Amino acid sequence: MAMISEIAGTEWIIDAQGCLPERLSDEALLRGLCQQIVRDLGLTVLGQPQWHCFPPQNGITGLTMLSESHLACHTYPELGLATFNLYCCREREAWPWEARLEESLGAQLVIVRRVVRGAADLYPLPSAHVAQQEAPR
Amino acid sequence: MAMISEIAGTEWIIDAQGCLPERLSDEALLRGLCQQIVRDLGLTVLGQPQWHCFPPQNGITGLTMLSESHLACHTYPELGLATFNLYCCREREAWPWEARLEESLGAQLVIVRRVVRGAADLYPLPSAHVAQQEAPR
Repeated sequence: MAMISEIAGTEWIIDAQGCLPERLSDEALLRGLCQQIVRDLGLTVLGQPQWHCFPPQNGITGLTMLSESHLACHTYPELGLATFNLYCCREREAWPWEARLEESLGAQLVIVRRVVRGAADLYPLPSAHVAQQEAPR
Repeated sequence: MAMISEIAGTEWIIDAQGCLPERLSDEALLRGLCQQIVRDLGLTVLGQPQWHCFPPQNGITGLTMLSESHLACHTYPELGLATFNLYCCREREAWPWEARLEESLGAQLVIVRRVVRGAADLYPLPSAHVAQQEAPR
């Protein structure tokens, strides 16, 4: 059986640091943010997104199944950190993660990594694109 | 606000190529495989895993929320490809992806990439560890 040479999908791996802790335990805000990502990129949700709040720090996990693959969100209020994975089996335009996560979560540093899935000739992974908010808030 | 220096989690990104297409559309097999991963690593499932079959090729997506983060599986029978993401917020031993995916899916090439989440000083991502099955089947 031949190895494939096609690309099966693109995954964006986002780590947003220096976020405002109270926003990272705000489930309604995070649900709205994930809905905005889905809407802006024209993605299609399958079934019901799953959300869970983890006491005592009230970190939140959200998993959304998409007809294009999936969107995952995990927050860590105690670290000021939110992480996202957006896996799309079809090519999509980039979402403005840096600007949106600064606005919505108060992120000070947003690391966006893009990983191609299913293509053996494309590892190691490309280096990160980093946007850092310079101005103090 | 200071940038974090702690590590929030480890994610394993696995692409298994050259799989037997009929196994990639076998939802029961894939559910069992994900249950085995969870069991072997002592992880805890939250709620009900979500599974979906995509006609006409019958690729399958499975999302499992864990108290330790999440496990995602996507298969592409038309490409002989299965992809997995296992994101754990606590350090875990490595799972033998290469051996298990060869046994269960007939994978010929298994690419395992490990990504540390939430640690700005750890990008770009480490290079891939690749296991290739040499013998023809």
